[in-house]
Amino acid sequence: MISYCTQCGASVALQIPSGDNLLRYVCSHCDHIHYDNPRLIVGCIAEWQGRLLLCRRAIEPRIGYWTLPAGFMENGETTAEAARRETLEEAGAMIETTAAFSMVSLAHINQIHLFYRGRMLNPDFHAGTESLEVALFAADEIPWSQLSFRSVKLCIEHYLADRTRGAFGFHEHELHPDFSSL
Amino acid sequence: MISYCTQCGASVALQIPSGDNLLRYVCSHCDHIHYDNPRLIVGCIAEWQGRLLLCRRAIEPRIGYWTLPAGFMENGETTAEAARRETLEEAGAMIETTAAFSMVSLAHINQIHLFYRGRMLNPDFHAGTESLEVALFAADEIPWSQLSFRSVKLCIEHYLADRTRGAFGFHEHELHPDFSSL
Repeated sequence: MISYCTQCGASVALQIPSGDNLLRYVCSHCDHIHYDNPRLIVGCIAEWQGRLLLCRRAIEPRIGYWTLPAGFMENGETTAEAARRETLEEAGAMIETTAAFSMVSLAHINQIHLFYRGRMLNPDFHAGTESLEVALFAADEIPWSQLSFRSVKLCIEHYLADRTRGAFGFHEHELHPDFSSL
Repeated sequence: MISYCTQCGASVALQIPSGDNLLRYVCSHCDHIHYDNPRLIVGCIAEWQGRLLLCRRAIEPRIGYWTLPAGFMENGETTAEAARRETLEEAGAMIETTAAFSMVSLAHINQIHLFYRGRMLNPDFHAGTESLEVALFAADEIPWSQLSFRSVKLCIEHYLADRTRGAFGFHEHELHPDFSSL
């Protein structure tokens, strides 16, 4: 939500601009239209000798839970570059990205979660500032009940299934609000 | 670029927030941090009886050139919903989306172009306000020299090649600035 125009500092109001069909914040003084669009969270499911690289979150939401390295894509980078940067920042690991692997739309929070498959270039890793710890997990060691987000669980499930059958696909999902904990 | 804080209307300055490593617009008064992230353009390559649905652009950039229906993804929708909405708005066509097909990163303009494969539900279509005309093209009728964007050309090329070999994949590209016209 915004209250003031980014261009002139006057107050804004919600209105449907001419030629549009959605409410936008429009400046009462200079008529500047402020668009707000979904954001991409990009990450990686990376292997070292068959084991998967996971981080335990040091920040909310879901502090203390295990996740794949991932974060908001930044301007000026490609999706694959975002996946490599986040893996370096959060897990201290240098990787090469193989291919886009899993894409999840979460329309209720205006996010898309995109995970790449990757390979660690060497066995080095360490916890970045947003991680409590980082570790490699074999397929039978995945901490399923301690995973951070549904999109992370889906990605790991697809990865292990595809690896078992010997062929990796591209997987899409739409996730809706989870009221199971109410 | 922004000059004023969206929350309090005071002036902003570019600085690296504590715990961050990129320049952001930070409010001089309330310290609100303004993030700016890449945006997704989502569209569809849709078929009716083997022919592909293209629109001739009524707006800049590339006014008058042929394109796939596509546009900025909006908050509150999934990627597939965005593809269906844009196809309805720009081409007046009802479609079902089959699968994500082509994803192109354009880091120099902070965009990701994502195209779905789709099927028209009936033969009806008409030009929306952003299109001069809409038409169906057989593979040997594609107006290659009159296409709007490189991401559109790549998508159509992959589509026709995949259809010929009888198997559709998921295709990724990174496009860099094109200086060929300088």
